[in-house]
Amino acid sequence: MITPLLENLELDTVGLERLIEHLIKGGVHGIFLLGTNGEGPSLDYRIRKQLVAETCKIVAHRVPVLVGITDTSLACSLEMANYSKQVGADMLVLAPPYYFPISQAEMVRYLEIIVPQLELPFLLYDIPSCTNLHLNLSTIKRAAQLGAIGVKDSSGDLGALYSIIEAFKDDGNFSVIAGAELFLSDVVMHGGHGVVAGGANIFPRLFVDLYEASVRKDLGQVARLRQKILQIHATLYNLGDSSTRSIMAIKGSLSLLGICSDYMAPPLHAFEAKDRQRISDYLAGFEWVEGGIRH
Amino acid sequence: MITPLLENLELDTVGLERLIEHLIKGGVHGIFLLGTNGEGPSLDYRIRKQLVAETCKIVAHRVPVLVGITDTSLACSLEMANYSKQVGADMLVLAPPYYFPISQAEMVRYLEIIVPQLELPFLLYDIPSCTNLHLNLSTIKRAAQLGAIGVKDSSGDLGALYSIIEAFKDDGNFSVIAGAELFLSDVVMHGGHGVVAGGANIFPRLFVDLYEASVRKDLGQVARLRQKILQIHATLYNLGDSSTRSIMAIKGSLSLLGICSDYMAPPLHAFEAKDRQRISDYLAGFEWVEGGIRH
Amino acid sequence: MITPLLENLELDTVGLERLIEHLIKGGVHGIFLLGTNGEGPSLDYRIRKQLVAETCKIVAHRVPVLVGITDTSLACSLEMANYSKQVGADMLVLAPPYYFPISQAEMVRYLEIIVPQLELPFLLYDIPSCTNLHLNLSTIKRAAQLGAIGVKDSSGDLGALYSIIEAFKDDGNFSVIAGAELFLSDVVMHGGHGVVAGGANIFPRLFVDLYEASVRKDLGQVARLRQKILQIHATLYNLGDSSTRSIMAIKGSLSLLGICSDYMAPPLHAFEAKDRQRISDYLAGFEWVEGGIRH
Amino acid sequence: MITPLLENLELDTVGLERLIEHLIKGGVHGIFLLGTNGEGPSLDYRIRKQLVAETCKIVAHRVPVLVGITDTSLACSLEMANYSKQVGADMLVLAPPYYFPISQAEMVRYLEIIVPQLELPFLLYDIPSCTNLHLNLSTIKRAAQLGAIGVKDSSGDLGALYSIIEAFKDDGNFSVIAGAELFLSDVVMHGGHGVVAGGANIFPRLFVDLYEASVRKDLGQVARLRQKILQIHATLYNLGDSSTRSIMAIKGSLSLLGICSDYMAPPLHAFEAKDRQRISDYLAGFEWVEGGIRH
Repeated sequence: MITPLLENLELDTVGLERLIEHLIKGGVHGIFLLGTNGEGPSLDYRIRKQLVAETCKIVAHRVPVLVGITDTSLACSLEMANYSKQVGADMLVLAPPYYFPISQAEMVRYLEIIVPQLELPFLLYDIPSCTNLHLNLSTIKRAAQLGAIGVKDSSGDLGALYSIIEAFKDDGNFSVIAGAELFLSDVVMHGGHGVVAGGANIFPRLFVDLYEASVRKDLGQVARLRQKILQIHATLYNLGDSSTRSIMAIKGSLSLLGICSDYMAPPLHAFEAKDRQRISDYLAGFEWVEGGIRH
Repeated sequence: MITPLLENLELDTVGLERLIEHLIKGGVHGIFLLGTNGEGPSLDYRIRKQLVAETCKIVAHRVPVLVGITDTSLACSLEMANYSKQVGADMLVLAPPYYFPISQAEMVRYLEIIVPQLELPFLLYDIPSCTNLHLNLSTIKRAAQLGAIGVKDSSGDLGALYSIIEAFKDDGNFSVIAGAELFLSDVVMHGGHGVVAGGANIFPRLFVDLYEASVRKDLGQVARLRQKILQIHATLYNLGDSSTRSIMAIKGSLSLLGICSDYMAPPLHAFEAKDRQRISDYLAGFEWVEGGIRH
Repeated sequence: MITPLLENLELDTVGLERLIEHLIKGGVHGIFLLGTNGEGPSLDYRIRKQLVAETCKIVAHRVPVLVGITDTSLACSLEMANYSKQVGADMLVLAPPYYFPISQAEMVRYLEIIVPQLELPFLLYDIPSCTNLHLNLSTIKRAAQLGAIGVKDSSGDLGALYSIIEAFKDDGNFSVIAGAELFLSDVVMHGGHGVVAGGANIFPRLFVDLYEASVRKDLGQVARLRQKILQIHATLYNLGDSSTRSIMAIKGSLSLLGICSDYMAPPLHAFEAKDRQRISDYLAGFEWVEGGIRH
Repeated sequence: MITPLLENLELDTVGLERLIEHLIKGGVHGIFLLGTNGEGPSLDYRIRKQLVAETCKIVAHRVPVLVGITDTSLACSLEMANYSKQVGADMLVLAPPYYFPISQAEMVRYLEIIVPQLELPFLLYDIPSCTNLHLNLSTIKRAAQLGAIGVKDSSGDLGALYSIIEAFKDDGNFSVIAGAELFLSDVVMHGGHGVVAGGANIFPRLFVDLYEASVRKDLGQVARLRQKILQIHATLYNLGDSSTRSIMAIKGSLSLLGICSDYMAPPLHAFEAKDRQRISDYLAGFEWVEGGIRH
């Protein structure tokens, strides 16, 4: 989930409630806060805590709430982990600390320190484009031994993801979750367990339907829904050359759809008027966005 | 300056005082807190603030105190900037926010937002190995326009550093400072202004002497002192294969010399006994470390 | 196809014939010479030409023969292109020249120079791990305008590959071919056209069967065959830490199966005895390699 | 030395003779053919051989001739090595084969194969921007054991270069040579042995004078001459955004100075008219290029 922000970068609590209801009505199976799309690292701890507390209250256990606790400071990660448990979140999500370049062995050592101090179940999070460490299979296996209940792989490296699925195929307790929307059906049909889709902020039902079609192995429906995601990628996510343009596009779309505002915490920034207009045009052109946000 | 930590990762205030007196006695021209060697990003804000306040009190304006305020959160950077001013620090040091991959243009936009809110003079900090953005000359020039009083270049890219010196050679108000110890004499003799040397935690006098010899263009003395730094690099900094081994070596040396302990905040970690012994042997072998830490 | 070599690095013509018959009997739809698995860049032009001429003679148009003409020298690429046409090859395969780091625009300029001089149809070849240029969609579109009949994408970036399939979905004359074996079924089921599979040197029928199952959308069969490829990746391709270990494993397997020898042109090298034994053990353990190379 | 080419990409033999006389008159201590600036990998073997033979004839042992033999094919490298010896070249220069990503250990293995077959002395050549392997100190030491007479370091990593100088400081037979023009005086004053300067194609006397001033430790003269090189970098080498723009600028300058033409082998290309005019303006503005090419 993205983090709705006001112009002064305070939490947009009205937008937050609208967004959460939009997601739950769309059928999502869980809500992940403070990840990359959630601009977690850009927010201060007051806002992060407020977001988690408000979200837990609004969600009220209708779906699990997952909280990203990744930080360069162990103490800060633990503070967030403890707070999340206290206000009723369900799970934690943890990527490598991301300032110092560390090795796989140093990441394992780090996990050995932090994991025993986590009081909620946690997912490991692989996102080398932001953390500069592409977790290898051996590190992921060690995390599983330490208690990780799964991995969210946002590496874009589907070959590695397939190796992870293969390695854990007999472990009913370990979930392999893709971070790339386009890989949802591939991952689910080949034995993985789901996707964390930024685009589900806008079109939750689309991704839920694709998930269900993938589980049913309904290839016709998979092709039909997947085509819409390809269309999103070729249009909404394809504006400008910022490496974070998909996050900008998601917030921009939500703003245009009247759900929440599109202010972003620096160093990210909203689109200028021209690109905002193009998003508007794209949204209007999606025949599956009628009367608001249906598909 | 490294950050002296106790085993429970609280600030080692006794070690801190000993270290600061060691540095000032060694003749350093300033003390930079919470940089990469200072494990800034690994520390929580309570410790960071305590470190800045204690240091300012101990230093008592004998030399300028510079505070690293780099963070992925603008609000956190500003909080640190304000606190630093409040407790009497002299200058700030700012590297790019380091989670999202951003472009030069996005860094400029970020500077345009943060700089007007800084109430102390600031140095720009280029350290692509940790931030993944190698600031180009155009970004550095824009930072200077916005008010940067200099740049600390820890890119290891001396070619770029020479271009920066050339570009600012007629600007008497902009300092070009190397982050790589071995480049001290080259940078100073070619028109740059100094170095932020991690090794000066152990051997402050050595680096001060080299600086002064470089200013005097005393090539014989430069060669003699530079040789010692080469020796440090080939021994102390050359243990193991961690990318942060030089920081580990500096803390380990300070511990062996009785100045402060060598605990490190995760994900960094102190050397094991075997490498600690090798540091001890190396230090004993430096004829210029007699009766403690002289050179 | 790998290039069978004798110990003196001359062409193993006996092995070549056995390998080609093995491939054709296995049902492959074409044979690609002098690619990455074929150690093209490591061979001198005498051997490259001999390989192409001999292969064309042995194949005798039973399947198309594609020839990799990638080189850092335009003149050498053209010499190979002309020779290929002369001895009866069917198509050419062209990756970026790979010494100088070039931009997308410089690659387009290069294509505009070389393509008009090619007298056979050609496939564009994207393999950034070796050429350091990840061809973007705009460059691929320009190549198509210039006459490319398709692209072989060995980038490992399935997200980009899906975008290519989407971009060319209405162009019946442009083939999108994966270079990663594990992506075969995904690519074919989502509208792509095939795979160039190094593993097909050993197990051609396996990959042909998977291709056909993917075309038929026979998910049960896809899962069964794909499982074997995952097994190959987790065993044969997983020995040692050389970045070229899969090529070493393919040649080693072919040698153990009595098809051709496993000598490799420097800088590549065959496995030592211990890893060779492990390959042997793995092959023996594949229940689908009975009485030789069946599956 | 760059390689003078005609429009049809044949060798510009008239330009070659003028260029060589220009270099020798300028006082260079040797001529290195077929390196990166020499577009070695872009030329076919007929041209490469013609260049070496013609150059050896024209030079007639007035200075040593070094020949780059780097290739992805061992056989091609050896062919060039043998030919170079046959026509009277003095030394060879060898970088890693550059298609397959190889490890330091694989590079050592490669050296162990090729070096015993080289009949001329050879320099190792580190240029990771083109070969993707940054030779480490251990590999360089092994090359020295095998017979390398020195290393040309074009990594831009002056820290590593200083470590190499330190490691070989007691070895009178091993030369450490920089590939980056701006590092000439630093390297020579700190114990290194020289530079291979692309800019010396245009201004040989400038670089020879700087070398001699560096040897004499004449800091005033070093500063004066180094300033001109900085000026070259800020002007001539700073046009456009091609990663090979300095090679384009060198050829363009030589063309404007009437020495040879500026045709380049694809994928490199000459500047368009506008940038060519800017080069002309820059050259005219250098007060040290009067009446031709003096400084």
